[in-house]
This record gives sequence, C-alpha cells and structure tokens, in this order.
Amino acid sequence: MSHKKLYLEDLNVGDTFSSDTYQVSAEEINTFAEQYDPQVFHLDEQKAKETFFKSLSASGWHTSAITMRLVVDSVPFAHGIIGAGVEVNWPKAVRAGDILKVKATIKEIIHSKSKPNQAVVVVEQHTTNQDDDVVQHTIAKLMSFTKATSFDN
Amino acid sequence: MSHKKLYLEDLNVGDTFSSDTYQVSAEEINTFAEQYDPQVFHLDEQKAKETFFKSLSASGWHTSAITMRLVVDSVPFAHGIIGAGVEVNWPKAVRAGDILKVKATIKEIIHSKSKPNQAVVVVEQHTTNQDDDVVQHTIAKLMSFTKATSFDN
Repeated sequence: MSHKKLYLEDLNVGDTFSSDTYQVSAEEINTFAEQYDPQVFHLDEQKAKETFFKSLSASGWHTSAITMRLVVDSVPFAHGIIGAGVEVNWPKAVRAGDILKVKATIKEIIHSKSKPNQAVVVVEQHTTNQDDDVVQHTIAKLMSFTKATSFDN
Repeated sequence: MSHKKLYLEDLNVGDTFSSDTYQVSAEEINTFAEQYDPQVFHLDEQKAKETFFKSLSASGWHTSAITMRLVVDSVPFAHGIIGAGVEVNWPKAVRAGDILKVKATIKEIIHSKSKPNQAVVVVEQHTTNQDDDVVQHTIAKLMSFTKATSFDN
C-alpha cells in the first residue's frame, strides 16, 4: 500500500487504519517456534493434541510479530512505528491457514510537556482471523513527532 | 538447562528463575525485521543514523521473541509457558552484539474460581543486556495447571 506519511499534526483521536491480510502457514508457525518459542504445541501437530491448545497453534509472539508487520504496512507514521510499550492479550489461538488482518484506532494523543515536538499516541489494535475472531488485542503506546522534527544530527 | 518440571502446586510467590544468555547479531536483527518489522532503523546501519534510534536497533518484537526463547528454556512450567496476556515496555533499544538474559519472578498466583486445577501466575521479567540495562520489562500472565491436569482427551 502507498500512503501519505503522517506527522503528529496530522493525527486525530478516532482515526482508523485497516491492514492488508496475512495468511499463516504451518511451516511458518514451526519456523518461528523453532527459533523463539520451541514448545510442542507450536512445533508438532500430533503432539499438540495432548496439550492445552489441542492442535498446532502459533506462538503468541509470532501473532504479535505478524500484527506488527501488518501495522508497519498500513499505519503510515512518518518517523516510523516506534513503540514505547504495549499491552497484549491473546483471546484465541492462531492456527495454520488462518488469514489475519489488523484494524487500528487512535484512542488518545498525549503531548509531551517537556518536548513539544513529540507525543505518545495510544493506538488500539484488533488482530482478527478469517472468522472475525479476535486473536490479539493490543494497546500500543507509539511515539509520534511533528513534521519539523529531524533526527539528522 | 535441565529442570524439574513445575506444576501449579510447586509454585510460590517470590520464586525466581534466571536464564542463559543470548547474543543478538546484526544479521539476526535484519532477518527478523525483513519479515516482521521492515523499518529502516532495523534494516540499515547507515540510514538508521538519521532516525530516532541513531543506529541499528532490534525490533521490540524481536526483543520479545528472544525474551520468550530465554523464558521457555529457563522457566520449567510442566504444561508449558502459555500466556494469556502481557504488558511490555522497552526502556532501551537492543543493538547488534548485545548479550541478553532474563530474570523472572513470580509476583502473584490467582487461582481460578471455576476451575480449581488452574491458576493465572503473574510473572515479572527483566530482560537485560551485558551492561545490566533493562531492554524489556514484562508482566506476563501465564497459565499454570495442577499435576493431575490432563489435556489428553
């Protein structure tokens, strides 16, 4: 997608952004898990049956990473998507074949008292699957900067 | 590391767990970012100089994934590390060459009223670099189950 780049002065509470879709394969679930979350329910369809998840599921951190990819590609903050902190919940597991997308909404803009060129923008994100089930709910505190801001020094 | 597997009845508030170390390379920072967080400050050392980060930095979600790997390998919950939700802050960026480790502490054990075999265990994690700077602070709500719990049905 191509977007106009957004600076702090372009942002308003209530603005929404919708991502493209991302299909998650069993192979990608396994590859991510082998490196970062090597637990049986993320690695082995058969053995996953005897676990809490009952079948192969993506690592929650994999779901977070995919969510970030969708946000980076659809929320055009001019200085980048820079997170100071997040709250994340995973109400439902992501399964092989799921097609994910993200809707993001600006909930609050907290201007810095000491640095007038920057603010923390609170963005709520719902990551949903092809059945519109929420697989990740995120409250992200993102840094935003005015157009006049330069880091080139 | 080899550990005795821990069930809900083995856990106590105040228990701590220390991980091994994990060194992060520039190549790994780039590889993760290409797939999940393709922003210039995670991809290009030269171009990163003109950004908020001033030099190449790991995606926060990459730091989270590495933290999860260290936790999976050092916190031996018998039924696995299963997160219901987390709060994450990134006080300092992770740079190429950083050597990370995690210390985890059980802060609270919230027993389920409806399911006596399970509880939510609140675990605080500090991910630190080789200078003992905190690069990620995490409050994780993990699921824990009694020894008698079986998912094999």
